Amino acid sequence: MEGRTHMVQFVGTQNMIDLVGSIGLEDLFRKLVTYIEQDFIRWNQFDKTPRVASHSDNGVIELMPTADHDLYGFKYVNGHPQNPVHGLQTVTAFGVLADVATGYPEFISEMTIATALRTAATSAMAAKYLAREDTKVMALIGLGAQAEFQALAFKAILGIRELRVFDVDPAAYPKFLRNMVGSGIRITEARSAEEAVMGADIITTVTADKRRATILSDNMIGAGVHINAVGGDCPGKTELQRDILLRSDIFVEFPPQTRVEGEIQQLDADYPVTELWQVIAGEKPGRSSPRQITLFDSVGFAVEDFSALRFFRDQVQGTRFYRDIDLIAEPNDPRDLFGLLARTGSAAGQPALTS
Amino acid sequence: MEGRTHMVQFVGTQNMIDLVGSIGLEDLFRKLVTYIEQDFIRWNQFDKTPRVASHSDNGVIELMPTADHDLYGFKYVNGHPQNPVHGLQTVTAFGVLADVATGYPEFISEMTIATALRTAATSAMAAKYLAREDTKVMALIGLGAQAEFQALAFKAILGIRELRVFDVDPAAYPKFLRNMVGSGIRITEARSAEEAVMGADIITTVTADKRRATILSDNMIGAGVHINAVGGDCPGKTELQRDILLRSDIFVEFPPQTRVEGEIQQLDADYPVTELWQVIAGEKPGRSSPRQITLFDSVGFAVEDFSALRFFRDQVQGTRFYRDIDLIAEPNDPRDLFGLLARTGSAAGQPALTS
Repeated sequence: MEGRTHMVQFVGTQNMIDLVGSIGLEDLFRKLVTYIEQDFIRWNQFDKTPRVASHSDNGVIELMPTADHDLYGFKYVNGHPQNPVHGLQTVTAFGVLADVATGYPEFISEMTIATALRTAATSAMAAKYLAREDTKVMALIGLGAQAEFQALAFKAILGIRELRVFDVDPAAYPKFLRNMVGSGIRITEARSAEEAVMGADIITTVTADKRRATILSDNMIGAGVHINAVGGDCPGKTELQRDILLRSDIFVEFPPQTRVEGEIQQLDADYPVTELWQVIAGEKPGRSSPRQITLFDSVGFAVEDFSALRFFRDQVQGTRFYRDIDLIAEPNDPRDLFGLLARTGSAAGQPALTS
Repeated sequence: MEGRTHMVQFVGTQNMIDLVGSIGLEDLFRKLVTYIEQDFIRWNQFDKTPRVASHSDNGVIELMPTADHDLYGFKYVNGHPQNPVHGLQTVTAFGVLADVATGYPEFISEMTIATALRTAATSAMAAKYLAREDTKVMALIGLGAQAEFQALAFKAILGIRELRVFDVDPAAYPKFLRNMVGSGIRITEARSAEEAVMGADIITTVTADKRRATILSDNMIGAGVHINAVGGDCPGKTELQRDILLRSDIFVEFPPQTRVEGEIQQLDADYPVTELWQVIAGEKPGRSSPRQITLFDSVGFAVEDFSALRFFRDQVQGTRFYRDIDLIAEPNDPRDLFGLLARTGSAAGQPALTS
């Protein structure tokens, strides 16, 4: 071909699995949290917009772009609650980083696994600022695709070594337990969400497939608890009874998005919430008393994907965990894009073209 | 790895070059125009939104999504007018098709070349409905990266065999001429845009790098001409003097986008325009008299990229012009995403993780 090809670094599924294995999950969570914190601290440097959603009968496909002065990132992600019925995942994703100065894409990565990692890392990061310091026990409601990631992130970041878990599906617990063998976390199966939350310092809800479900009701929530609400993440999908929200101090990622997608879609549009970045940047207090109920109403925001893409890009440099793909054509003379075709028999004068 | 990997078909730069070569450019334009027409005729079936732009000092990065009932598509594209100074292209792009029913990505392709192809195909398609039937001569102002594509599309679709060309950069013409050798098109170099348009039935403007430039002034435009205005395609960037617009019947792709990006950004927000799809669907007339001045105010719309992605996806099936990449992780049990990691030493209990 005439001209260079601008190569884009591609991290596929197998690359990601091997990379995660080479770092180790707990180390990965510790490093990834530092990347997310770096970006939350400089929150105002980001070009932010609610995600761009395309809804259909079965689910939603979203694009989540953001950019700072140097780097542009976006994630493609779907949410199809009925997919598991057909043996498919509810959520799949991939993401891209590009150079703001030139607009050229530089890095493309699978993000099905990476999204689970960044969601868990963000949850644990929030809890570091919002949970009580003497936190020991976490309840984990929902043992689906995200459960193990949440458990290990909270072990890595907060030292959680005791989990009380529940899922409505009896098959979920054996799957979870098998994956957690050797994790150093003591796991107790509860017979209900109510039983799981008894004595828990942190309550993580990460259920799916539900509309306006009440995973937690008001009488289950005692003083001093931190609630990490991960599963309510699209319009019409919530996990918490409204009364819980009224007793909690609520922390969110990006209010314009959370008010539509999060637990707070149950509240008035001007109900006071704190942006998590303000806590991490030291501009607003996180937890201010041991009896306070704190709630991280997590829906996932583009800046977290940006942080994750930065992290994985940095991690794979100089390793075998990516390969180059020729995503972007680059002729020697930028005005001669056509010249790329001219050398291969496809150009104007070649036999293939004669009409 | 535990579980399948959902493979995505990837058409890289070299694949695209080889594919175009195997079809031949003129045949390709004829086939691609039928795909675009199919989608314009069923315009109301598409989920449409103006592109999502992230602006910076040097340029813009955009995501252009659209979807019908079955298929979701988006294009990533940048526009960086100063890139050629550094030997880089102004525009690069890639695109993705996904299954609306599952949200799974199915197809990813380079679109730097494909965008030039679909832009030229759309221009020629519009001219088929809007130019005079006795059209023989086209003026082509701007001999940059898109010029040859426009020339060959108009030859393939309208039978144009005489071009009058002009570019302010003296190096552009030899490049253009070299690429057009053997095309069967008679080419005359003009010393000015004014000279180029004399006697032309169609005027194509496809310049770049300009802000509110006046490539065409009112006195240059005679009765019966069709103007194919391709280069004015972002806020603050236009090519035509405003008076020309007032004398023309104006056809656009998607008014909410064109009113911001196209030539009609110079007009009132309610200035009457016709949507091109209505003409192609037979709902509105195209050209109605031989003395009418018609203007296709082209800015490029997501549906055209969707059509192009559909076309290239269909073309590569059963060929060697794509390869599979493991963009999407797919565990056997969709609730056991973590299990993908568990088999490679990265899971909870493996030594790499012990903290």
